[in-house]
Amino acid sequence: MFVADCLQVNRQGHLCVEQVDVLDLAAKYGTPLYVMSETQIRKNCHLYRDSIQQFYGGNGMALYASKAFCCKEMCRIADQEGMGLDVVSGGELYTAISAGFPAEKIYFHGNNKTESELIAALEHGVGAVVVDNLEELETLDRLAGARGVCQQILFRIKPGVDAHTHQFIRTGQIDSKFGFSLETGEAMEAVERAIGLSHVELVGLHCHIGSQIFDTEPFALAARIMIGFLAKIRQQTGAVLTKLNLGGGYGIRYTPQNDPPPYEKYMEQVSLVIHETCNLFDFPMPYILLEPGRSIVGPAGITLYTVGSVKEIPGIRTYVSVDGGMTDNPRYALYQSEYQIVNAGLAAQEKTMQITLAGHCCESGDLIGENLPVQHLEKGDIVAVLSTGAYNYSMASHYNRVPNPPVVLVRDDMDRVIVKRESWEDLTRMDV
Amino acid sequence: MFVADCLQVNRQGHLCVEQVDVLDLAAKYGTPLYVMSETQIRKNCHLYRDSIQQFYGGNGMALYASKAFCCKEMCRIADQEGMGLDVVSGGELYTAISAGFPAEKIYFHGNNKTESELIAALEHGVGAVVVDNLEELETLDRLAGARGVCQQILFRIKPGVDAHTHQFIRTGQIDSKFGFSLETGEAMEAVERAIGLSHVELVGLHCHIGSQIFDTEPFALAARIMIGFLAKIRQQTGAVLTKLNLGGGYGIRYTPQNDPPPYEKYMEQVSLVIHETCNLFDFPMPYILLEPGRSIVGPAGITLYTVGSVKEIPGIRTYVSVDGGMTDNPRYALYQSEYQIVNAGLAAQEKTMQITLAGHCCESGDLIGENLPVQHLEKGDIVAVLSTGAYNYSMASHYNRVPNPPVVLVRDDMDRVIVKRESWEDLTRMDV
Repeated sequence: MFVADCLQVNRQGHLCVEQVDVLDLAAKYGTPLYVMSETQIRKNCHLYRDSIQQFYGGNGMALYASKAFCCKEMCRIADQEGMGLDVVSGGELYTAISAGFPAEKIYFHGNNKTESELIAALEHGVGAVVVDNLEELETLDRLAGARGVCQQILFRIKPGVDAHTHQFIRTGQIDSKFGFSLETGEAMEAVERAIGLSHVELVGLHCHIGSQIFDTEPFALAARIMIGFLAKIRQQTGAVLTKLNLGGGYGIRYTPQNDPPPYEKYMEQVSLVIHETCNLFDFPMPYILLEPGRSIVGPAGITLYTVGSVKEIPGIRTYVSVDGGMTDNPRYALYQSEYQIVNAGLAAQEKTMQITLAGHCCESGDLIGENLPVQHLEKGDIVAVLSTGAYNYSMASHYNRVPNPPVVLVRDDMDRVIVKRESWEDLTRMDV
Repeated sequence: MFVADCLQVNRQGHLCVEQVDVLDLAAKYGTPLYVMSETQIRKNCHLYRDSIQQFYGGNGMALYASKAFCCKEMCRIADQEGMGLDVVSGGELYTAISAGFPAEKIYFHGNNKTESELIAALEHGVGAVVVDNLEELETLDRLAGARGVCQQILFRIKPGVDAHTHQFIRTGQIDSKFGFSLETGEAMEAVERAIGLSHVELVGLHCHIGSQIFDTEPFALAARIMIGFLAKIRQQTGAVLTKLNLGGGYGIRYTPQNDPPPYEKYMEQVSLVIHETCNLFDFPMPYILLEPGRSIVGPAGITLYTVGSVKEIPGIRTYVSVDGGMTDNPRYALYQSEYQIVNAGLAAQEKTMQITLAGHCCESGDLIGENLPVQHLEKGDIVAVLSTGAYNYSMASHYNRVPNPPVVLVRDDMDRVIVKRESWEDLTRMDV
């Protein structure tokens, strides 16, 4: 019925996250409001942990990709669930450290880390820096040397795999701002350069082939290519790198048409390919790292809005305007992303309307979706947009000086605020 | 040479905003950094004020559309320059009031104002609420009644004019979330409804036909249609509305290929059309309101970045990664907007490279532009993206937990911070 497992309908016919009626949440906290299911998040973490155990003998770790949804409490949950952390900026690193996340389980990513970010990574002692380019390699070696430390690093590699997804979120191919290319030989040059440096220790490779991928085949192909390259590195330099980070990109259900395979399947197939390829090259099985973000938090979150007006334009379409929009969810404006929506008060009823859900920004492109089936809706109703747990709060803006909504976490029949609502005053804090 | 008049090159060959070397600003404040020319902003305000004086006998006012760039100091400047203010949210209203902007010169817009926003508008005593739909009309009348006041209002009308611009920023046509349609008769119904209410006073009409428009013809056409409707309202109801707000949308130069007519031309032609049409209908010349935003601040701003890496992919393209991106300027990701860029240290030299300017976010779509001609660039260089004064700071996000850059205002040879830089700590303020 719904694209996410954490949702159900209670006796009053209202939408619930776990056992909490979302109309109660809207009344208690106001709208717009992000609501997330803690049980669902923890369950998704388990899936990855368990599948590494089951199919790969526990010789690996899943890193939560915090860019999908980063706040202190999410870092605490990831830690409690035995996850490592993938951070992509000084701000995410700061958040994780502030939340008490163990630095040695943090992997620091990014195509253009600043010196101050690299210094923060070194001073906190992150587990590994995933180095993107030669300039960064030299800078990191210099900064680590100045501090008398040797930093473990991975290299970000473009394996050349095209994951057949939206071109803007396709990152494994050669035409990408990220990483070193295999084809041009720059990856091997970088490996040789790194081996010659004293304050970085190359311990493995990383790749990321895209986002919202529904096939297991591209992941298997990437794994095969990466192990082939590990073997080639051993052959050419003698170095045996021990870590293989296969990135993230596992698809989730935004609409009933999306049909991702169970996440265990990824791990099962990828494990098989790693086994085979390692056998082929007589290469030791690497410690494996995965970086799920969207698939951990995406289906666990919904956004609640209050309907302000319903504007039927005869023969054209019906605009339903709500009190949020591209400021809390820019994914339709950016990627024309699809969502399932529900009138939270009539959640079990048939969907009789087809609407365009419009945000409140002074911009025509501020839409959350077009041609969306939904139950009857009128002013004052609470509408829920589903699967908004990833890349919604994290991409929120203050466009039109709109405050960011709070995030409420639900567990069983309890709810608590994990990110507070901003006030109008908060928005002018930096103004002189 | 540059798309904005406030830029020049000094003896060292460095780019200057007014008389300030931007390399000095980058060294003093760090990057990324928004820099704006106060002289240019004030000059742009004058253009509108003077043209209303010259071509329309001073019977009108330009409202600065604060969504383009809103902070307290910008509100103060608009006030000092005799501008009114167009706000589109409670947050913008709060900013204006906090800056001491006179409430009676504020026009409150939006397709879905919340009750708390309408209450704020009433309690501060804004000049007019631009009412978007019937639900809002009823709500406002009720809220005003409860406070024993009568609120002046305008109606937002869809004149049905298609301004031939990007479909996402085209707002005058019938298929829009904004306003009342003329064709369907809903605009006239709303007028009749408003006349029957006690706590709102309908004083005029508003329309907005789009953004980044380079022709004067669509504005003239909209003016003609709107005056025709004013005459029809008089004929049908006896009411003579006195204010006509023609919105904004005047195009600016982002690239040398953009060629907007001088802004005076808009006013000259629109004045002519209003004169003619008012004569035709024997209708009194309305008090005119214009809402320039982009054309006030857009050309007055640049963004400075530091180059982190230059990645040449043979036969494909060269990625230059900088320390900002879609977090401070999402316009390329949203609209594929074009920009002119300059190596600030070699500003007078020939452009010998063609590059893709990539942001630092962990997202392939985080680009500021593709195929951009620029002078030779290498790691450590300061690159300036021009005409970023509008819809950059105001659309900034914290994606990847990246802090928002500060805004520095330059006047002659002086510079001062008007929006402070956020810290990593600031980003976690709302986290529990």
